[in-house]
Amino acid sequence: MSGESAFIDLLRGLPLHPGARGLDDDAAVLEVGGETLVLTHDMLVEGIHVLPGQDPADVAWKLVATNLSDLAAKGAEPMGVLVGYMLGADDARFLEGLREVLSTYNTPLLGGDTVSGGPPRSFGLTAIGRATHVPVPSRSGARPGDAIYVTGPLGAALAGFEALQAGNLNTALPYRRPVPLLAEGRALAPIVGAMMDVSDGLLLDSWRMAKASGTTFAIDRSAPPIVLPEARRDEALRWGDDYQLLFTMPDGVEPPVPATRIGKVKARADDAPLVLDGTPISSPEGLGYSHGG
Amino acid sequence: MSGESAFIDLLRGLPLHPGARGLDDDAAVLEVGGETLVLTHDMLVEGIHVLPGQDPADVAWKLVATNLSDLAAKGAEPMGVLVGYMLGADDARFLEGLREVLSTYNTPLLGGDTVSGGPPRSFGLTAIGRATHVPVPSRSGARPGDAIYVTGPLGAALAGFEALQAGNLNTALPYRRPVPLLAEGRALAPIVGAMMDVSDGLLLDSWRMAKASGTTFAIDRSAPPIVLPEARRDEALRWGDDYQLLFTMPDGVEPPVPATRIGKVKARADDAPLVLDGTPISSPEGLGYSHGG
Repeated sequence: MSGESAFIDLLRGLPLHPGARGLDDDAAVLEVGGETLVLTHDMLVEGIHVLPGQDPADVAWKLVATNLSDLAAKGAEPMGVLVGYMLGADDARFLEGLREVLSTYNTPLLGGDTVSGGPPRSFGLTAIGRATHVPVPSRSGARPGDAIYVTGPLGAALAGFEALQAGNLNTALPYRRPVPLLAEGRALAPIVGAMMDVSDGLLLDSWRMAKASGTTFAIDRSAPPIVLPEARRDEALRWGDDYQLLFTMPDGVEPPVPATRIGKVKARADDAPLVLDGTPISSPEGLGYSHGG
Repeated sequence: MSGESAFIDLLRGLPLHPGARGLDDDAAVLEVGGETLVLTHDMLVEGIHVLPGQDPADVAWKLVATNLSDLAAKGAEPMGVLVGYMLGADDARFLEGLREVLSTYNTPLLGGDTVSGGPPRSFGLTAIGRATHVPVPSRSGARPGDAIYVTGPLGAALAGFEALQAGNLNTALPYRRPVPLLAEGRALAPIVGAMMDVSDGLLLDSWRMAKASGTTFAIDRSAPPIVLPEARRDEALRWGDDYQLLFTMPDGVEPPVPATRIGKVKARADDAPLVLDGTPISSPEGLGYSHGG
């Protein structure tokens, strides 16, 4: 969910740590004492990334889960998190969610900061993980000839979002409590060409991965599994927050985790990172959800 | 500047990483592959930690400098930062400040996130550093018999704050652009009992250090150097944002950096962590600036 924006483009001009891969990716990679660390930082803002009035425990869950999802896409094992928390009316409930998500993913709290502020309140989280495979997978490793996969169905978060607005908390779970695919990411890391989590919509994130790799992704619009009615396929492919893993692998190799093949990587053609059912798409506009961009 | 609040007290109930010292301190300490890392996370909120309308370059500077100051208090060398940035009207100016502060302290940008949101806008920063001395200094290492020191004058940030409100940008520098005492922290780390940066006021931070150490700090109110008129001494000792280092050392040892002796560590007496000119102070209320607490 790292920001994609002109600001990030400007930031790219700043000096980077020799061990850091930089800002074209969802996480920073840093060599320390013979280990390879992966660091991510995401912010959530009330009214933008979470609904106003949403259960604070859900906010805590999502804050942690979205960062752990970035670690999952790197095949990294969580070592801990630091939380930036803006105090509110129901801090104890936020804490309950924090406790739940950290114990579910066996991830310790390392520290953090609390401040007053808002509305809207905002929350930050930094996750630090240990890479289980080097080189750490990135967005830029897709090669012409690779097959493109996604680990699971899309549109679950959108359906959950609508259920939450309708007051149905249980069916809203995929939106309220996204699941970081940590085990899947670790299994895939040694094999993939490129990998990232689908946070901003399958089409937009495919476009970004193809762009970072200098390739063109030819995607079959009907291939990705969706949980919405067929009539809403376009929405399912454009809505974010599902946190499935998008990855490429050499053609003919069987993925070690359940995944659906959705297309093929080609040499860059027509200046279009994405070709959808044969139609070249040059611009990311309208492909998905762009956070703060 | 880590939050001190009932929320943090609750967070202390969460499982901590075996290598992490936890939330009673300004930074987390984590052992990784033979290195000792120090991690800090601070948030700044418009209207609370920075003035509304303040130069975005100053905001960037302060965001980085306050976190590097936490590293300084641990004797740690910065390895990099991750920034959580809420987009606004003058992102380029924020970027200029970020570039200035990172190049001044030779610290690379590792990554981050950009979001929409506010007003009020908020910003988060995570700094990661490498400890230069183990064990890493903490708040809790003060021992009865130690002498108490502060590295420099207090009240400079308050004077700068007033200058900024009066429109005098140059004399406002100590408030606009605090200086993390990284070299001083590294020189002191092998020698100190306890060490922390004075972010929330000398008296409040002394109270906290004494409390964390299970001791009583007997402080001579007239000893700390101040940059304000004598009539405003109480304000200088209670206002935060100066980022001087507060530390204790065995009596009779000469500090390796310029510092002023301000008192002596005693065994805890009268249930009061602080004794000011002979008067025991049990409660931290009114001693300084409590962020979001």
